[in-house]
Amino acid sequence: PFPSGRGIVYVITDRRAAGERSLIDIVHAALRGGANAIQLRDKDVPARAMIALGEALLPLTRAAGVPLIVNDRVDVALALDADGVHVGQDDIPADMVRRIIGPARILGVSVATVEQAQQAARDGATYVSVGDLFGTPSKPDAGPPIGLTPLTEIARAVDLPVLGIGGITVANAASVVRAGAVGVAVISAVIGAPDPEAATRALCDVAAQR
Amino acid sequence: PFPSGRGIVYVITDRRAAGERSLIDIVHAALRGGANAIQLRDKDVPARAMIALGEALLPLTRAAGVPLIVNDRVDVALALDADGVHVGQDDIPADMVRRIIGPARILGVSVATVEQAQQAARDGATYVSVGDLFGTPSKPDAGPPIGLTPLTEIARAVDLPVLGIGGITVANAASVVRAGAVGVAVISAVIGAPDPEAATRALCDVAAQR
Ligand code: NI
Repeated sequence: PFPSGRGIVYVITDRRAAGERSLIDIVHAALRGGANAIQLRDKDVPARAMIALGEALLPLTRAAGVPLIVNDRVDVALALDADGVHVGQDDIPADMVRRIIGPARILGVSVATVEQAQQAARDGATYVSVGDLFGTPSKPDAGPPIGLTPLTEIARAVDLPVLGIGGITVANAASVVRAGAVGVAVISAVIGAPDPEAATRALCDVAAQR
Repeated sequence: PFPSGRGIVYVITDRRAAGERSLIDIVHAALRGGANAIQLRDKDVPARAMIALGEALLPLTRAAGVPLIVNDRVDVALALDADGVHVGQDDIPADMVRRIIGPARILGVSVATVEQAQQAARDGATYVSVGDLFGTPSKPDAGPPIGLTPLTEIARAVDLPVLGIGGITVANAASVVRAGAVGVAVISAVIGAPDPEAATRALCDVAAQR
């Protein structure tokens, strides 16, 4: 299930941010550092390569008792028997995803407005992620950063866990949680960190503060 | 179900080959011309756009009594409740796809060797397509053309309908059927034709000859 409570650090994989290093080793380190959820995000690779990466990550996430959530590809999530799926506003509509994956699996939806968040809740979302908060180099196709105000509005409007995403670092993570998020979703701050375990631990410490 | 018998003309959509023209109108014309199956292939667009195209095509294919088969995205096929899925050697493995889509839906697999075709048969394929036969501009990432010999070997080795694909035109379609195929899969020859209905009808005529 999706982690309960606050102080959640949700780590999203990214081949580019990993550079020459092994994404599997980095995720392993993030789990040691206390990551509460892992998202398998692997754009622009064939489904079979994404499945191979997922098959390498699942034993690690299962051993850690942490959900592995697949970005965009609902079919890859089913093929892997992963714990959930995350979709954005250009992906398969969340209500269709919920029908495909059944009631038990985690369903995350990227939202930027209260309306999108309320729709996600009606569609059966387990959580929403709100962003791009601060501007991120990992998703160059995203729009301009929206800041923390929509996050606060969304956290008040829907009865779902809300994660902040987009340009989050140890320096600004506390502001995200104070704005109403149960935690932070990060790519570069962990995957691109010189020491991913220490980076995750530092984010966990900050996110757990109120 | 997958069309039985010989003389099958299987038309694969391609936004680029359609150019400025409506892909929906072109598919409609191909169905009037006698196309026996339509594959929704829509690379490099978000899943939601692929679903929108599929939702526009399904009423046409259903009215024609012709299956709509979705390329690569098993989840899009499920979201659309399409008639089947087609996967290549880099996509989700066919046995996993069969598990996800259940026993009834059509499952097509791209193969280039007898071994791949036998594996597809074991994995639950409904049909295989063999290519690239003659070299095609529609799939620039494909390897060199394999010619008709593997098609004949595969048609003898597996008990599945075999389609030829790759650079097929009215001029060479007869050779593909004579080599052992139940029909031809085409992109440019129909989608890029000045008159898609006439182009499909001409292919049907040639493919029906033995
Ligand atoms: Ni009509």
